[in-house]
Amino acid sequence: MFDSVIAVLDWFGIGVFATTGALVASRKQLDIVSFALLGTVTGVGGGTLRDLLLGVSPVFWVRDPTIVVVCVAVSVLVFFVAHIPESRYRLLLWFDAAGLALFAVVGAEKGLEAGSGPVIAVLMGVITASFGGIIRDVVGDEPSILLRPEIYLTAALAASLLFVALTGLGVPRTAAIIAGVGIGFAIRGGALLKGWALPVYRARPGRTPDQLGL
Amino acid sequence: MFDSVIAVLDWFGIGVFATTGALVASRKQLDIVSFALLGTVTGVGGGTLRDLLLGVSPVFWVRDPTIVVVCVAVSVLVFFVAHIPESRYRLLLWFDAAGLALFAVVGAEKGLEAGSGPVIAVLMGVITASFGGIIRDVVGDEPSILLRPEIYLTAALAASLLFVALTGLGVPRTAAIIAGVGIGFAIRGGALLKGWALPVYRARPGRTPDQLGL
Amino acid sequence: MFDSVIAVLDWFGIGVFATTGALVASRKQLDIVSFALLGTVTGVGGGTLRDLLLGVSPVFWVRDPTIVVVCVAVSVLVFFVAHIPESRYRLLLWFDAAGLALFAVVGAEKGLEAGSGPVIAVLMGVITASFGGIIRDVVGDEPSILLRPEIYLTAALAASLLFVALTGLGVPRTAAIIAGVGIGFAIRGGALLKGWALPVYRARPGRTPDQLGL
Repeated sequence: MFDSVIAVLDWFGIGVFATTGALVASRKQLDIVSFALLGTVTGVGGGTLRDLLLGVSPVFWVRDPTIVVVCVAVSVLVFFVAHIPESRYRLLLWFDAAGLALFAVVGAEKGLEAGSGPVIAVLMGVITASFGGIIRDVVGDEPSILLRPEIYLTAALAASLLFVALTGLGVPRTAAIIAGVGIGFAIRGGALLKGWALPVYRARPGRTPDQLGL
Repeated sequence: MFDSVIAVLDWFGIGVFATTGALVASRKQLDIVSFALLGTVTGVGGGTLRDLLLGVSPVFWVRDPTIVVVCVAVSVLVFFVAHIPESRYRLLLWFDAAGLALFAVVGAEKGLEAGSGPVIAVLMGVITASFGGIIRDVVGDEPSILLRPEIYLTAALAASLLFVALTGLGVPRTAAIIAGVGIGFAIRGGALLKGWALPVYRARPGRTPDQLGL
Repeated sequence: MFDSVIAVLDWFGIGVFATTGALVASRKQLDIVSFALLGTVTGVGGGTLRDLLLGVSPVFWVRDPTIVVVCVAVSVLVFFVAHIPESRYRLLLWFDAAGLALFAVVGAEKGLEAGSGPVIAVLMGVITASFGGIIRDVVGDEPSILLRPEIYLTAALAASLLFVALTGLGVPRTAAIIAGVGIGFAIRGGALLKGWALPVYRARPGRTPDQLGL
């Protein structure tokens, strides 16, 4: 039962992140093959870095190529329907939010599974949740989602922290999973709807090297 | 015989990609050490990611440092002759095209060699072919070659797909290699000369977050 | 004794690079969680790539989570004091210079330790020293430190080259370490103070694809 809950969430996370990658491809007016690559890279990127760091080898989608096939299929679907939503970028933000919450818990669980302690497990959650979006934005030349003003990483951190803490306290795992994903999506969703942001200690933007005379 | 054909193509691919990295360094007016690093990273980048993903450890150039020496030598050579061509960027595109076709087949072959099935082998071809150029453009702050309008990834996909299909059908490997590299270079070369592009489903560019009021 | 010298330098390098990552977060006015992630990624980035390439698995900070805790602590400290220096970017450049010299020697030593020959050891030094800064600048959307006009990689190369050469000549390791770090910091510091730059063979900047009619 537990394995299947995490596995289901993992599949959902892969699907929604692949969608965000394909949406970036549509914003950049790329062709269908580029949709497939950007969707796949975004869908599997976070988990790939996690597996590399944990020393899980080969990485998960090399062991299970169906994952790649699904990413390609999702991307091709987006290629044909991306014109429907009024704002693809808003849709991207919401799918990214769902993926963020899902992968934060999935990543933390994979960290625990690999024998890591709580600090590394929480960090694996944050890395799995954020890295797919980071490479999507770098490769697709989008403004980085990490640099947006509202809360982003904090939602991933809350999700994986709550999941790891509840698991450590002996809470049944399905409950810990639901709580983790729920808090992560609630925080990021609230940030998107209400513009929630953590305080910035000192609102003084950086100057460019030119302005500094460097 | 077969091993040496792939090995020769691998060396050519490394050399032409190292050249493109050094050409970016020359476009950015960097010093000779930066030429060497950017050339080396571009030359070995795709194969390095492939080895990491397949769990081949340590990566190929750690096992055979001659590869690094060659990348450095090529980059130093470019440092002294980069002023000769009228347009270094056009040259970069053509060398990149050659590397793309070569690495698409080499990468797919390494995937098969590591025991992967056809889906992963094809993907390894595309990754090996494209990743060196991606990090070159990110590190060198060039417009990403993936975002250019003409066909790029499709050429790599065609090359590795044809090679894997012909190999699966029992065609002699040297013939499969020649067919794969040939089709890849023909498609990318045609795209460069004629501006070939796959249809974009809906020519509606993405709006910036600002335009969306986000 | 030797192990502790390298270990101490490694800790210093991690701390100063984490500081530079957090300084970029402050320049971009991010929140405290983003400080922690950007600081951690920058602090451990170079060593992580080195471990992946050498096949050291899992990577060092997964084996010793204290490193992550220290990166987070340093980043949080920067969050509270980043407003004090007049120019955070200048401070970033100097901390980066210190980290560059330290990691160039630490990385080369880890390469030797893993059984690599001198070419790979020197390259591991350069990679360890430069990669944290590269991903910091890519993720934080800063102008890449590699593209600045003054000497950067050359300082890292000199540091790891001198260390590996002296070690190969049988010089006591502590002396080799001090010489390597010293020359690296002296060169990069001189470049920052005096604008030292290696000659650029031909001062002809690249044209954009648009200017080339591409």
